[in-house]
Amino acid sequence: MRQAIDLSIENVANGGGPFGAVIVKDGKVIATGTNRVTANNDPTAHAEITAIRAACQREGSFKLKGCTIYTSCEPCPMCLSAIYWASISRICYANTKQDAEDICFGDKFIYEEIERPIGKRSIPTEAFMRDEALQAFRDWEAKTDKIKY
Amino acid sequence: MRQAIDLSIENVANGGGPFGAVIVKDGKVIATGTNRVTANNDPTAHAEITAIRAACQREGSFKLKGCTIYTSCEPCPMCLSAIYWASISRICYANTKQDAEDICFGDKFIYEEIERPIGKRSIPTEAFMRDEALQAFRDWEAKTDKIKY
Repeated sequence: MRQAIDLSIENVANGGGPFGAVIVKDGKVIATGTNRVTANNDPTAHAEITAIRAACQREGSFKLKGCTIYTSCEPCPMCLSAIYWASISRICYANTKQDAEDICFGDKFIYEEIERPIGKRSIPTEAFMRDEALQAFRDWEAKTDKIKY
Repeated sequence: MRQAIDLSIENVANGGGPFGAVIVKDGKVIATGTNRVTANNDPTAHAEITAIRAACQREGSFKLKGCTIYTSCEPCPMCLSAIYWASISRICYANTKQDAEDICFGDKFIYEEIERPIGKRSIPTEAFMRDEALQAFRDWEAKTDKIKY
């Protein structure tokens, strides 16, 4: 956690957001990440996402089972979901989503939006062409050599 | 939406997951994406994330205000959050998260997990060292040339 925090502090000086993350497997750091959203014009480049992508490249796997992620701030819903998709086994964080809210990051707002029914969210959302789209799911079901996750 | 669905169908044949997305600005497609999780060993490479990253690179911005995302399936919480972070203005989808659940994708499970209090989630989660981590947030607050988002 000390390393994740140090990364978050250094990253502010380096033109990034105040967030750092470290992924540990078998007691060793296998990847680190910092927030590079504005620096890289990538709204998905949160510290945790950056660390997960780097760890997966290093491991040659889309799963990080057995790994712990140390993140300097409670993951936003994007990063928390990425942690689930990557099957990370344990999450440690320091600052809270309320702390992030207090310095004007929208994590808490997005948590609240996700819990709302689709019609009550702030981004207008419509559904159509499901019948056509189901074709891809039927093809997936029929595929014999698919890699599930 | 037709293009997003076609991408999702083609992607199954190309070794990817059954998902496609298209981002439109001022009536023109500015980026597309498909699910490349297993193909690229990147658990964050969902169709929407891939499309958002490509659109932001093209636009030279970490915001996609005024854009619509057409996605062949209701976004998972990771992608929905990324859509919020990118300030996309409208979401259109075809297949539902229940359809994804029916072919064994965990979108619905992750929606349920996010709504649970931290101690009730399936991934063990601990918080510590907040006092030390707040230093990065104080540095951020004090920074006069920061780019907010």
